Amino acid sequence: MRTEYRTKRKIEFVDTDMAGIVHFTRFFVFMETAEHEFLRSLGTSVAMEWNGDKIGWPRLAASCEYLRPLRFEDEVDIHLSVSKKGTKSLTYQFRFTRQGEDIARGEVTTVCCVCNPGEKLRAIPIPDFIARQIVV
Amino acid sequence: MRTEYRTKRKIEFVDTDMAGIVHFTRFFVFMETAEHEFLRSLGTSVAMEWNGDKIGWPRLAASCEYLRPLRFEDEVDIHLSVSKKGTKSLTYQFRFTRQGEDIARGEVTTVCCVCNPGEKLRAIPIPDFIARQIVV
Amino acid sequence: MRTEYRTKRKIEFVDTDMAGIVHFTRFFVFMETAEHEFLRSLGTSVAMEWNGDKIGWPRLAASCEYLRPLRFEDEVDIHLSVSKKGTKSLTYQFRFTRQGEDIARGEVTTVCCVCNPGEKLRAIPIPDFIARQIVV
Amino acid sequence: MRTEYRTKRKIEFVDTDMAGIVHFTRFFVFMETAEHEFLRSLGTSVAMEWNGDKIGWPRLAASCEYLRPLRFEDEVDIHLSVSKKGTKSLTYQFRFTRQGEDIARGEVTTVCCVCNPGEKLRAIPIPDFIARQIVV
Repeated sequence: MRTEYRTKRKIEFVDTDMAGIVHFTRFFVFMETAEHEFLRSLGTSVAMEWNGDKIGWPRLAASCEYLRPLRFEDEVDIHLSVSKKGTKSLTYQFRFTRQGEDIARGEVTTVCCVCNPGEKLRAIPIPDFIARQIVV
Repeated sequence: MRTEYRTKRKIEFVDTDMAGIVHFTRFFVFMETAEHEFLRSLGTSVAMEWNGDKIGWPRLAASCEYLRPLRFEDEVDIHLSVSKKGTKSLTYQFRFTRQGEDIARGEVTTVCCVCNPGEKLRAIPIPDFIARQIVV
Repeated sequence: MRTEYRTKRKIEFVDTDMAGIVHFTRFFVFMETAEHEFLRSLGTSVAMEWNGDKIGWPRLAASCEYLRPLRFEDEVDIHLSVSKKGTKSLTYQFRFTRQGEDIARGEVTTVCCVCNPGEKLRAIPIPDFIARQIVV
Repeated sequence: MRTEYRTKRKIEFVDTDMAGIVHFTRFFVFMETAEHEFLRSLGTSVAMEWNGDKIGWPRLAASCEYLRPLRFEDEVDIHLSVSKKGTKSLTYQFRFTRQGEDIARGEVTTVCCVCNPGEKLRAIPIPDFIARQIVV
């Protein structure tokens, strides 16, 4: 069974726009923060030191489909699952629901990189202690 | 030939994150603002009154592929083109370049809606004075 | 004793900037969200209906002093207290600490207004069921 | 006469909130971006290399008073003036106007620092080529 992670988020005033609903770009923030919580749940972080290098997870692609609007003070359930595990990359799928009702679906693909300051980004195989915790 | 529109944007400090590059969510803001400039270039606005109704363009879907990072003070060229024109919807494609180098590619699909306060959103045919200006 | 409220917040990646720390504008978001939680703790909301009017709390002034930087994944404690209660306005003071260490201090003054769509904002006395819960 | 700088900004959709006006935190972004344009007009940048060090300008304090709301598609004039020049710090005052009408007034105090990665921030005297261009 796919590795998955669940979290919640309460909509803040700053998330809204003049249409009275959550601005579409905020869903990408919600996905990223859920991903980072998921990485912490594996005992790592999106910004970790490993073998003397700084490791990060730059985004290759991100997408979202919007089904229903979210509003101020809504509590949204966020369901993350890993849909692809490459040697160097991970693809996450996200489902946003509010009280069981579908709100949005998203996908983010990230690549594991050495991100040392002053060096060019360099993709590397996902460290084994992370990879072995993820089932697709 | 497809309807297209070109604009530029200078990267601000607030666009960056601790990785030293533009945060991936900002590209969606840049797409939206380019779309709104485009709508103004047609003599309309994303927030217009028309026949006594408030017309808006909620997003159905948005996606972005990231090829190279953008940094503080970069000037990015944004090229919008309309790739699909439905009766009620428009799909935009975006290309981000910096001095001719590809940075990112994105797509946004919007739907023309009556957005009167206190009413449910209702999709409507794109008003003719807008639709007839757009070639796909 | 002054009315007060305490909350916490975990720093997200999107809160950071290329200096590697939390962007200074985010502290104002954190103050606002703490204020809104405080209003909910009184049984109201920053966006409430009352006697058929929409009531809101626009900001008159906001300020912040920065003592130490916050970083990604920090957990910050936010302490709100009401320092002034006018007939129509409230002034909040905020203290940000991380593990007991002072990070920042802020102040926000808001005014209770009728915010009906299509009408000019109009300041009104704070509804009594709110005002009587606040001690300064 | 005080050193001053003028710029403009067109309000974007993402700047607005569900109250239909520009979110109060955005004024601080507008101040920062105006400050950075001002620094570039002096031949420097908020993120510069100088004598082998990275120099930055962290914020000590920021404040804003809100007089009238800004709305989507407004064009706001931003007037920056330097109100204090310390050995290591600068205080900027900002006036926001729309077609001559006062919208907001703000103030930001920054301190010139060595911001080398991995080192603690260290305040330094403002480099002379910058300081001598600023009159208070």
